Amino acid sequence: MQNTAKSRVTLWQLCKRINIRGNLQVQPQRTKVLSVENMNPHVKNMEYAVRGPIVIRAGEIEQELAKGVKKPFSEVVRANIGDCHATGQKPVTFLRQVVAICTDPDRLMNDPSYPADAKDRARRILDSCSGKSIGSYSDSSGVRVIREDIAKYITERDGHPADPDDIFLSTGASDSIKTILKLLMTGESGKDRAGVMIPIPQYPLYTATIAEYNAYPIGYYLDESNTWALNIPELKRAITEARDHCIPRAIVVINPGNPTGQVLPRQNIEEIIKFAKEENLFLLADEVYQHNIYAPGSEFHSFKKVLTEMGPEYNQLELASFMSTSKGYMGECGFRGGYCEVINLDPDVKVMQLKSISAKLCSAVAGQAVMDVVVNPPRPGEPSYDLFMKEKDFVLGQLKKKAQMVTETFNSIEGISCNVVQGAMYAFPNIKMPPKAIEAAKAAGQKPDAFYCFQLLEETGICVVPGSGFGQVEGTYHFRTTILPPLENLQRMLEKFKVYHEKFLKKYK
Amino acid sequence: MQNTAKSRVTLWQLCKRINIRGNLQVQPQRTKVLSVENMNPHVKNMEYAVRGPIVIRAGEIEQELAKGVKKPFSEVVRANIGDCHATGQKPVTFLRQVVAICTDPDRLMNDPSYPADAKDRARRILDSCSGKSIGSYSDSSGVRVIREDIAKYITERDGHPADPDDIFLSTGASDSIKTILKLLMTGESGKDRAGVMIPIPQYPLYTATIAEYNAYPIGYYLDESNTWALNIPELKRAITEARDHCIPRAIVVINPGNPTGQVLPRQNIEEIIKFAKEENLFLLADEVYQHNIYAPGSEFHSFKKVLTEMGPEYNQLELASFMSTSKGYMGECGFRGGYCEVINLDPDVKVMQLKSISAKLCSAVAGQAVMDVVVNPPRPGEPSYDLFMKEKDFVLGQLKKKAQMVTETFNSIEGISCNVVQGAMYAFPNIKMPPKAIEAAKAAGQKPDAFYCFQLLEETGICVVPGSGFGQVEGTYHFRTTILPPLENLQRMLEKFKVYHEKFLKKYK
Repeated sequence: MQNTAKSRVTLWQLCKRINIRGNLQVQPQRTKVLSVENMNPHVKNMEYAVRGPIVIRAGEIEQELAKGVKKPFSEVVRANIGDCHATGQKPVTFLRQVVAICTDPDRLMNDPSYPADAKDRARRILDSCSGKSIGSYSDSSGVRVIREDIAKYITERDGHPADPDDIFLSTGASDSIKTILKLLMTGESGKDRAGVMIPIPQYPLYTATIAEYNAYPIGYYLDESNTWALNIPELKRAITEARDHCIPRAIVVINPGNPTGQVLPRQNIEEIIKFAKEENLFLLADEVYQHNIYAPGSEFHSFKKVLTEMGPEYNQLELASFMSTSKGYMGECGFRGGYCEVINLDPDVKVMQLKSISAKLCSAVAGQAVMDVVVNPPRPGEPSYDLFMKEKDFVLGQLKKKAQMVTETFNSIEGISCNVVQGAMYAFPNIKMPPKAIEAAKAAGQKPDAFYCFQLLEETGICVVPGSGFGQVEGTYHFRTTILPPLENLQRMLEKFKVYHEKFLKKYK
Repeated sequence: MQNTAKSRVTLWQLCKRINIRGNLQVQPQRTKVLSVENMNPHVKNMEYAVRGPIVIRAGEIEQELAKGVKKPFSEVVRANIGDCHATGQKPVTFLRQVVAICTDPDRLMNDPSYPADAKDRARRILDSCSGKSIGSYSDSSGVRVIREDIAKYITERDGHPADPDDIFLSTGASDSIKTILKLLMTGESGKDRAGVMIPIPQYPLYTATIAEYNAYPIGYYLDESNTWALNIPELKRAITEARDHCIPRAIVVINPGNPTGQVLPRQNIEEIIKFAKEENLFLLADEVYQHNIYAPGSEFHSFKKVLTEMGPEYNQLELASFMSTSKGYMGECGFRGGYCEVINLDPDVKVMQLKSISAKLCSAVAGQAVMDVVVNPPRPGEPSYDLFMKEKDFVLGQLKKKAQMVTETFNSIEGISCNVVQGAMYAFPNIKMPPKAIEAAKAAGQKPDAFYCFQLLEETGICVVPGSGFGQVEGTYHFRTTILPPLENLQRMLEKFKVYHEKFLKKYK
């Protein structure tokens, strides 16, 4: 009882403390139950740069522009997030037809303006939904036929069988990444916390989730001097140092890389798999950009395929691979479709995994339908094939041109260097920051790259994300930009960027 | 270093231990990184009865039936989950029209067979989406105009203003419930854990989430002898006893009740609000069944409205209210639409809350569009008004009849009593379990209510959820059934149930 009373008092005091700000309302301000002082500390520690402070500022500037505030630019270019449709990419016709028919089958299933193959796809999905409605819950792991189609897609991609029961659909890839990481948490504190190896730079979902789960991030640095290569000695260094702080349990590999745009060679993947086996790590392969390969000689190899072909005992390693409808050529972010294939999972753990997602009921069935089109697109001979291929090839062709243009342009600018954008949707150029700019940033209380990016936003309307949001070698400075704006817009953006950068260099010379 | 090596060995040993099962494959079985022994213990502790073992068995039986296995029934009646379309309810025409147009606007925005008001709604949503596509990410809190429409809906419902910036959309209501509970976690162990008051019986999302977050559930019993009333002395008892185990931080109220179907009178809500104020608790009002009110004299009062009208200082209490597209008259579960209105949140905490949802990017925009129709339905004079009202009234009218029928039928059966289903979508009848059945269940290693429900499933194909999955007073036994099957099917189901129950009573007399 003593103890309980004490706890209450502490909480109460905490509540009072934050109210000493002195709120001068007439009505006495009630102390809050929930304050930043007594809220979940792990949520407080989360950071997600892709939607961080600079993006909030971009939104404010848009509102200022709308109100007629004069700026040196007329619109904000949102190059901060891989949001294809937001930057003008058109949806794939066939994909939207299938989802529209699934949504309003009474009206559209017999509409002569919709092609037969779209109707076939929609009918097959609806037949697998309870009550033939995408408004009913699916199995927690997703609509059965969609999981079958995903298994077929993986089988064709890799040349090795996939099992629909190893697959579950999710709200984007983020959701299944969190599901798998959650299973791996040891639920303890201090040195008994689960350690998760993540690349630096990384997609900040990982650091955000690791913070939220109170796990330990084991950062391994990608080698910028060698096209962001993933070097095994660096993995060994990272895990060795981390053993004093956590129990290393998993390694995350993002291929093609985000924000770094590299595509891993097959041999490198083999080395990573060997490392995971030696160190007894669960493999998480973030492969959401598997359709986004641009550089000559670059090819996508799935971890599943490589691991399978390495034979015993590698083919028994626990591996989760993640895929999304948000990227690729379709860019259907808003539908929040995603899947995870997890192989070699302990059967008892699989029961727990299914139980844990069942409390979320299921992911959005419309998003699952989008995923179905991605893994089961029109085939040669089907009525929608030609248009589908034309649209797909156009988007990927443009991205390829933009990847090349971005790389070349950045490397042509004094004080900027940028690795080849081999894949994914981003460039992560390196800024040689003038010492005076670093001082000025310090004086302004900002990290130098944030200082650089905020000025870029204020002066040109270009919104990119400071490298510090992804992680980088101490003393180096980067930013991430998408390559998504339409070709001419991107070209204009790069021209404006160049002018800004040269002015910045002059200012802090 | 000593310590680290020890941790590794322990993990390794754990991995080996579970493999002593002796797997006789030719290829030596690799020990798993992840096992039930070393996985996240909090995930292990989660239970979610609505999709629990009996539902898994129901799925197996369906597969057996499909394979031609002879059973005393021809189909499984899934009365375990509030999944309206799965049991034959038709989607609301207008709602699906709006979402179909949003999905394929190029084709459908000018289609003469779609009504103008559906096009207006779709256009307004698309205009508020980046790139005018529901395939782009929305703000993490949801599409701006949809949040404005929700605010208008709440304002009209309550007669008090609502602020779009207090609203965020989510993947069903479950997702936002988890978001709010997550903020409240103290992130500690033992007596410093956050305590969350929940009704018993409760919707098992709450116990599952509390287990996952390693919080402390403070169960307060609803009064079955008084239509599942929520009594304040019982709240006081529960919180007093819990203080030895946790720091009580929040109270969850489900109104209308799930699984219990009661609708709280206004005075009762006032008492709860007073209690929350006295005890310094954050209020979570699960109001997803706000459209589902059937009993004469019952009326829905939102916590927001009551709290606002109670004046200072009650109107400063922190309150989160949850709503969903899955229930009501629309029953659009698969779209996973939901929202949360949270008022009086500390502004600094609000920043943290937005940050925490930003790492999930956003909820599915199609589901947000469904929510928009729910809060902004056709108005008198609009072309779709009459059909919309006809469809809505039909569903709610049928539910009202079924609520009455279910209550009456259960109460007409010997050894069953059932409170009036005043609202929501469920009945939670009480089974007077014969002592011999309790013994037989014990011998079979099952809880008596699970024993009863599993036999019901095997003999009749009716799938309901044992009361133990929701919580109940020790020594009492219940099950939850939905009232969703079409009227005649529900009638047949109740007849079959009656026969089963009488046979059961005779068997264990």
